Amino acid sequence: MQRVYRESGFPLDEERLSRQETLFHNANGYLGVRGTLEEGTRFKTMRGMYINGFYDIVPMKQAEKLYGLTEDKEAMLNVADTQTILIRANGELFSLFSGTVEEIERSLDMDAGVTERRITWRSPSGIRLKIVFKRMTSFVMPHLFTQECEITPLSGPCEVTVESWQKALVRNYADPDDPRLAADDACHLVPDGRELWEDVDILLARTLHTGLQVCTAVAHDLSVPHKASWRYDKADHAALWQAQYDAQKDETARLIKYTVMYDSVRSGAPARDALSDMGKARGGLTRLYQEQRAYLADFWDRADMEIQGSDEDNIAMLFNMYQLLQSAGRDGKCSVAAKGLSGEGYEGHYFWDTEMYMFPFYLLTAPQIARQLLMYRYALLPFARENAKLLGHKKGALYPWRTIAGRECSGYFPSGTAQYHISGDIAYAVTQYWLAARDEDFMRSCGAEMLLETARLFMDTGNWYQGRFHINDVTGPDEYTCIVNDNFYTNACARYNLEWAVRAVGMLKDWPDYAAWAERLGVTGQELSDMTAAAGAMCLPYDEETGINPQDDSFLQKPVWDLQATPRDHFPLLMHYHPLHLYRYQVCKQADTVLAYFIFDGVAAEDVMRRSFEYYEKITTHDSSLSTCVFSIVASRLGMAEKAERYFGDSLRADLTDAHHNTRDGIHTANMGGNYMAVVNGFAGLRLGEDSITLDPRLPSGWTGCRFRFCWQGRRLLFEMGREKSALTLLSGSAVRVVISGRRFTLTAPGDRAEAYPV
Amino acid sequence: MQRVYRESGFPLDEERLSRQETLFHNANGYLGVRGTLEEGTRFKTMRGMYINGFYDIVPMKQAEKLYGLTEDKEAMLNVADTQTILIRANGELFSLFSGTVEEIERSLDMDAGVTERRITWRSPSGIRLKIVFKRMTSFVMPHLFTQECEITPLSGPCEVTVESWQKALVRNYADPDDPRLAADDACHLVPDGRELWEDVDILLARTLHTGLQVCTAVAHDLSVPHKASWRYDKADHAALWQAQYDAQKDETARLIKYTVMYDSVRSGAPARDALSDMGKARGGLTRLYQEQRAYLADFWDRADMEIQGSDEDNIAMLFNMYQLLQSAGRDGKCSVAAKGLSGEGYEGHYFWDTEMYMFPFYLLTAPQIARQLLMYRYALLPFARENAKLLGHKKGALYPWRTIAGRECSGYFPSGTAQYHISGDIAYAVTQYWLAARDEDFMRSCGAEMLLETARLFMDTGNWYQGRFHINDVTGPDEYTCIVNDNFYTNACARYNLEWAVRAVGMLKDWPDYAAWAERLGVTGQELSDMTAAAGAMCLPYDEETGINPQDDSFLQKPVWDLQATPRDHFPLLMHYHPLHLYRYQVCKQADTVLAYFIFDGVAAEDVMRRSFEYYEKITTHDSSLSTCVFSIVASRLGMAEKAERYFGDSLRADLTDAHHNTRDGIHTANMGGNYMAVVNGFAGLRLGEDSITLDPRLPSGWTGCRFRFCWQGRRLLFEMGREKSALTLLSGSAVRVVISGRRFTLTAPGDRAEAYPV
Repeated sequence: MQRVYRESGFPLDEERLSRQETLFHNANGYLGVRGTLEEGTRFKTMRGMYINGFYDIVPMKQAEKLYGLTEDKEAMLNVADTQTILIRANGELFSLFSGTVEEIERSLDMDAGVTERRITWRSPSGIRLKIVFKRMTSFVMPHLFTQECEITPLSGPCEVTVESWQKALVRNYADPDDPRLAADDACHLVPDGRELWEDVDILLARTLHTGLQVCTAVAHDLSVPHKASWRYDKADHAALWQAQYDAQKDETARLIKYTVMYDSVRSGAPARDALSDMGKARGGLTRLYQEQRAYLADFWDRADMEIQGSDEDNIAMLFNMYQLLQSAGRDGKCSVAAKGLSGEGYEGHYFWDTEMYMFPFYLLTAPQIARQLLMYRYALLPFARENAKLLGHKKGALYPWRTIAGRECSGYFPSGTAQYHISGDIAYAVTQYWLAARDEDFMRSCGAEMLLETARLFMDTGNWYQGRFHINDVTGPDEYTCIVNDNFYTNACARYNLEWAVRAVGMLKDWPDYAAWAERLGVTGQELSDMTAAAGAMCLPYDEETGINPQDDSFLQKPVWDLQATPRDHFPLLMHYHPLHLYRYQVCKQADTVLAYFIFDGVAAEDVMRRSFEYYEKITTHDSSLSTCVFSIVASRLGMAEKAERYFGDSLRADLTDAHHNTRDGIHTANMGGNYMAVVNGFAGLRLGEDSITLDPRLPSGWTGCRFRFCWQGRRLLFEMGREKSALTLLSGSAVRVVISGRRFTLTAPGDRAEAYPV
Repeated sequence: MQRVYRESGFPLDEERLSRQETLFHNANGYLGVRGTLEEGTRFKTMRGMYINGFYDIVPMKQAEKLYGLTEDKEAMLNVADTQTILIRANGELFSLFSGTVEEIERSLDMDAGVTERRITWRSPSGIRLKIVFKRMTSFVMPHLFTQECEITPLSGPCEVTVESWQKALVRNYADPDDPRLAADDACHLVPDGRELWEDVDILLARTLHTGLQVCTAVAHDLSVPHKASWRYDKADHAALWQAQYDAQKDETARLIKYTVMYDSVRSGAPARDALSDMGKARGGLTRLYQEQRAYLADFWDRADMEIQGSDEDNIAMLFNMYQLLQSAGRDGKCSVAAKGLSGEGYEGHYFWDTEMYMFPFYLLTAPQIARQLLMYRYALLPFARENAKLLGHKKGALYPWRTIAGRECSGYFPSGTAQYHISGDIAYAVTQYWLAARDEDFMRSCGAEMLLETARLFMDTGNWYQGRFHINDVTGPDEYTCIVNDNFYTNACARYNLEWAVRAVGMLKDWPDYAAWAERLGVTGQELSDMTAAAGAMCLPYDEETGINPQDDSFLQKPVWDLQATPRDHFPLLMHYHPLHLYRYQVCKQADTVLAYFIFDGVAAEDVMRRSFEYYEKITTHDSSLSTCVFSIVASRLGMAEKAERYFGDSLRADLTDAHHNTRDGIHTANMGGNYMAVVNGFAGLRLGEDSITLDPRLPSGWTGCRFRFCWQGRRLLFEMGREKSALTLLSGSAVRVVISGRRFTLTAPGDRAEAYPV
């Protein structure tokens, strides 16, 4: 089976090209390059190259200055433009907007880790060229981006000239009318030097406010005899490489452009390191392609999924998984942005999306990435403690709602900072990592401290009233109701956090360094028993009359929004209604209580979950791409097969079909993670226990089968769901206990396979 | 008795001079002039002249752009500087910061309507001058501001030169660190022409965004032979009048500077009108002073108050009343700003302060001003309807929380726009005006429509739940808890509004134009009966356990803020704690439920009010200057005499003692109105009924008596409270029924007097 996503044909309009820039972007967790056309377009598009976690500070003045409100934010920067390659045949400039494009196809090969663009073009005067662009951001050399360009004259000999640019003073894309994009496009980079080492051109730039340095090194190899030279434009801090050769009919010339980027967050000497990497990369593209394949073969060996009976679903799922692999930071200095490294939507910020929607994917397919994502959060702990203090807390850690390097970047705190659940979400990820990886070293050095500090936040936020523990004035995942009391999801999250903080401290007790650790963090027995008491008495709203869990303490006393009567062009509601109006109705942007049902197994009785699910179904707009996947999972768990499939169908191809009309700004990484969970945790019913795995498969009606691989506590496993039966195979690792469709098995040795029939 | 407020002595430091600029400002409801020194200071102070309701638009970008949020606001402009007069004796410049100030005294004569500054000064070289400045903004010619300057050489003859400036391109005062002041000081005026008519210099300017024109005409009279000329500086759009004369020892020269200001909001030809007023004013200062005295004699005849036994309290109260008279817009195009016309704090915006804290004063002392304030609100009705639509309402009028010309100018909606009670407050003022003035013409042409539209807002905001009518997601007066359900004050306000809307429509039914009116507004019987039902079932939170009225539905489940443990320098809390932290505690910035007890007579049983009062006392910081006065009134009503006095004492001299440390930015007009109410409605226990007046006097212990005059339904009355007894005298108007200390009387004819002894 080939893992290739393809698009071909016309029209080559703004909408399609912008969307393709996102869908065919290349990234490796460090570098991200939009799938911009080498030759440029006539539209204003997001011509971007990004480094994960590389940012500057942007002012964000508050309309009314209140104590503690953020007045500047971090923003991911567009760091350079090395994509531009202009090709001329006998002086005629190749462009999709002149002459005739006879054929065009773009593809992403997820085994090769390469995107490709194949064009047959006839110039206005009749010169025909075949041009193939291949691009790669190397998983093995994360600082490297390569462009390979094959040029073949089809109509006769011609003189070919190439202009290849390297521009350092680029700007971010801005749209003052869209709250999800930056409003200003000020240039945040200032020149910081240029060097030419033989034919490697190096441009250095610094960020305006953070003073971070970025280095871009560019070099070219051209397979045919040619004349070439570099030219530097000091005013624009840009360099131009020009080459010229005589091309013969049907003879292919191969140009390779290497870009190496380093930054001062990771390197003490970006230019030196870039030059060193350039030396390793030059001339070795074939080897680099092989290493890329090997990296991906290893990945698919751990992660592969095959949906049988629907090629469309299959390729969409693989596409989602590949994007997640591309997007994840792996060096502990960054995370996974809401748009990955594919675009500037949400300004490169990391949200709770990482922990709650993507982390489970990495945990099951690339545990070393999962660990690094938690290391990043651990590094942010001092900021989270400061943030808690700013919010008036005596203790604890409040993670910023959106951030890059630790600063709270949300401008409207009622649906930003007030989402305290993010601290519980991060704590949840710590526990999941513990359950799936049993990484004692991490728990001792980082995890337990994170669990403790987040638990402390909830202890300091909540209070006892009439024998129960309440958490007031927070915002749950559903941003259509803000600043509420006893949000069901938040309280469930806090309870889990408190329980696990106590457990984690307990687990550490036989560690020789425990006493020093406990003293450093000021842990007392009283504190732990207070946490246990609060967890045990946590208020989880339940309404006797309807028999459901209300989203918060006053949710049910509000009128129900009339979704039937809402014009279709009034969605998403947040773009058409004042927040205060939204707050006043029972209407949900996304899964909130329903998410709690998925995440916190057993948080409610099944009949309560069923009634609640049906209740929230009627009032949820799914204006967030984080919603339908969760509804699908919970529908699966409640045995509502048809609904599970319908919600999944709405979600799976969100970016491929541009369902939210903003794929141009970047992929929806959380949605992609949600789709993965909808199959693995939803249809396959996977639950990770402390010592065993449970699977409760229900194959969607349109599929003939589904198989996927995953990792758990050092083992690799393969699960196969069929119409008739399902089977789990231990591929590697030690014995494991499993429950499949209610039947218990033990797989003792690699190759062992358990089969079960759905009930 | 002389109604004069005086300050004398030293030091002349920044704090004192800034505060005096406010305390000795001159205003007449149209023009306001800060008490800035003619000769300038070495400090950065707020050198301002203002026209009520004259504004420009200032950008107010939201940190996060949400649907419907205000992105620009109106700001009162500093319109000109004609205050500057530089005096030189033999070339030595008079200044408080050179030579020696031997004597200095400032005063405000509230019978004369004039401020005065008397200085004896010795120059560095030993020339001694006596200088007296008198300033007046005329109540009779509201466009006129006069400065009279008497200069007397005490040490010998000298040559005196005068430089008198007129500057048109002034800027507002800015402090980027104080949320209560403008953050930017961009110049909002552009030159729009200059004319010199004989010796009258006229400068015209236009506002940058609103395109409003302002005209400043200046002329001088000097009582001694002199040489004089005008000079115009085009670049600065400023004019300089220079005069020179030879002065003899002990001979007084008298310079009069006339400033006339007109604006295009009020005039179709500002320059022509200014010139015409100038012609009327020139040479007639003595007459103008007399007219000013006559105007004030008439005012005090209606409004006078005398506190016997405490000169300090007496002068403070008269000061407050005089400031209210100065501050009120009277032309239906403006209202009373939070700082009146005395400074730029709160950017000249009008809040609910006008209706709830100041309106009662005007109603009882200057009903024609009260009417004009309502006319201003009626003119804003179209904006309020638009605002309601923006907030998602199908019907009704939501008045902007802060505004000048109708635009919502609050940047943080949770403690701005969400304060829906402002619509109910305005409706309340309409009913009070009806009860006190029985102005049928107003009710028909404006009042009933206002009551109906505000009532509609509450109908559209609230909803039925379990047999009661609830109003969710609004903010009450207490801004330390925002976006709550069933705020007690708001719901009480809404109930009153609904009841009176129905009554007002009922009253209109025998009006010949009723049918057309009802059709225009789409009034139906169903709507009115829905309003009656909602009012009858309005949820007014009551807690069985504590026996109090909670401020909102979840107030009591929050922990109580530990005010004892809060450092004194952490007040006001809003300057030291994140709003979300404040929201999470039982802590009140100001009277909220307690205010409802004052405003809505009988809204709770006396024992409930008593318990609630004592409860809220413990958790209210009075960080707002609108708070202690209300606590005083309710304490009076509950018979807590000692508390009533203590709260009153905290409030009465707030600006004179600079209790809130920001008198420099302007007076606290609402506080001043609150102090008036604390005497009239609190200590004297005045309640205006529909057909009668009730008084329930309790004289504060430190006073020997208190007498005040007031107006009611066309009558003038005098109330005298003594230690032993109290008496009400009908001064003019028809028979009136009164209840004093529980005893019923009817005063039949002017001169009739009823005496009663407190119970």
